[in-house]
Amino acid sequence: MKPVLLPLPGNEAQAQALAQRLDAVIGQFMVRRFPDGETYLRIETELAGRTVIVVATLDRPDDKLLPLLFTAATAKELGAACVGLVTPYLAYMRQDQRFLSGEAVTSVYFAQLLSASVDWLVTVDPHLHRRDSLDEIYSIPSYVVHAAELVSTWIRQHVDSPVIVGPDSESEQWVAAVASASGAPYVVLRKIRRSDHEVEVSVPDVERWRAHTPVLVDDIISTARTMIETVGHLRRAGLPPPICIGVHAIFAGDAYESLLSAGATRVVTCNTIVHVSNAIDLGDLLATGVRTMLVPASAAEEGQ
Amino acid sequence: MKPVLLPLPGNEAQAQALAQRLDAVIGQFMVRRFPDGETYLRIETELAGRTVIVVATLDRPDDKLLPLLFTAATAKELGAACVGLVTPYLAYMRQDQRFLSGEAVTSVYFAQLLSASVDWLVTVDPHLHRRDSLDEIYSIPSYVVHAAELVSTWIRQHVDSPVIVGPDSESEQWVAAVASASGAPYVVLRKIRRSDHEVEVSVPDVERWRAHTPVLVDDIISTARTMIETVGHLRRAGLPPPICIGVHAIFAGDAYESLLSAGATRVVTCNTIVHVSNAIDLGDLLATGVRTMLVPASAAEEGQ
Repeated sequence: MKPVLLPLPGNEAQAQALAQRLDAVIGQFMVRRFPDGETYLRIETELAGRTVIVVATLDRPDDKLLPLLFTAATAKELGAACVGLVTPYLAYMRQDQRFLSGEAVTSVYFAQLLSASVDWLVTVDPHLHRRDSLDEIYSIPSYVVHAAELVSTWIRQHVDSPVIVGPDSESEQWVAAVASASGAPYVVLRKIRRSDHEVEVSVPDVERWRAHTPVLVDDIISTARTMIETVGHLRRAGLPPPICIGVHAIFAGDAYESLLSAGATRVVTCNTIVHVSNAIDLGDLLATGVRTMLVPASAAEEGQ
Repeated sequence: MKPVLLPLPGNEAQAQALAQRLDAVIGQFMVRRFPDGETYLRIETELAGRTVIVVATLDRPDDKLLPLLFTAATAKELGAACVGLVTPYLAYMRQDQRFLSGEAVTSVYFAQLLSASVDWLVTVDPHLHRRDSLDEIYSIPSYVVHAAELVSTWIRQHVDSPVIVGPDSESEQWVAAVASASGAPYVVLRKIRRSDHEVEVSVPDVERWRAHTPVLVDDIISTARTMIETVGHLRRAGLPPPICIGVHAIFAGDAYESLLSAGATRVVTCNTIVHVSNAIDLGDLLATGVRTMLVPASAAEEGQ
């Protein structure tokens, strides 16, 4: 029996793309809100004994979690053999420790809720700061898709004479990696603290880059504050208008418009969160991730 | 040590009222949303060994659940001896069975999430249809406040010559109870089906009620559709403008304004959900509920 994909609202295109690549079917699945704000959902596809894959990206996560947990619980109650989750953007990765006394360590609590609800998950570049792997907080198996290679490919194919730009020395390591993969040079902005309130930012070897297209890359574009500042530094240094690339298109408030107004000539993202800037399709990589997670289940079946 | 009340945003007044009645303190508690929509929270009050009472009414529940679960998890991690929940309006009470194949039985899943997160709960008139008690779905102890007596008292004190009106025969039992408690007569509308599409609604003994003030009572006013229809029937029958009373002021969309436009002379609710129509204060009853839930804990302490 083919796996059944259950896309939460807004994830239909991603599920459709996965269905084609995985030879899976989209379930007959209805999710709606009652006038009082409660969620109603119904899965009409027969699920007994089948693999179910919930597709739910988790930007703005708070009001998406309950429908997701309800979907997983219903699928299990209807006899699904296994319930996986494809969540191209995984929320609550930032607060992974108690920086101030009494803070909620939300990444751990969120991981516990998801781990208790689904059997495995596939996601894209989770914002792992101080942890090496999702396994440190998620007790279920996970597969992490890395967008870097497709981002590099996009740069190679679409940008003439790119120079990858890092906003600060912390970013040097991965800026170097993206640059190397896309066969481009890179430059990291230099910050010199003049006083408590004054930081001077300069572009090293600025003359060398006058004929290059600056390319800024980050994993999440949320408020876009760092990118907007960096675009400003590059423009003031007399470089051509830059291209900004993000993996995850959160764009809080008017961040997208502000980034364009600041002077970005183009803003490009991967399709982990549906947004007008989506240009890099991760469908193949997500499908590979799902296939990997399904292997143990199939192997177990054959062994029976 | 005094119990610590932690009000989620919007529940500050309810928590303040409880603090006075219970000799409890309001915790130093901050909840806010990051620009990307994730919740941040911090509890600065020392909680080790103390009783913590989260105050969170759960209308429009989906985006309120995660902050509530985070609060409970944080309180436990900070050493709280016990974490209770005062939720004057308890959500997800309607879908308590699978009416159509494949439906999510959300009241059970929601109950499991809350039961796994807090140690007890106090609520007001949960919308129990086909179940006798919260204990059938909640595995934690609960205390249910009944608003009927205070609703009856409000009617006695504020309405001249009331007649309690039931919209249909199903409502007769509790309409009779409210009428009896407020020392008022009651009347139940009579529906006669003329055809598939035509239902005639009449007010029995209509002449008898011309000098009375009709009072409609319901547990939840959400879309207010039934109340609006009933107000229409009463007005067409030539009765004075009615007063509408609800326990829980959901008021989806413009339901409140529509109910007033339909001809209700006044709309009155209990303060389980903050709304301009709140006029019946359940603070004493909620405090009694909390005291009841705290007794076992205190008894256990004394026994040590």
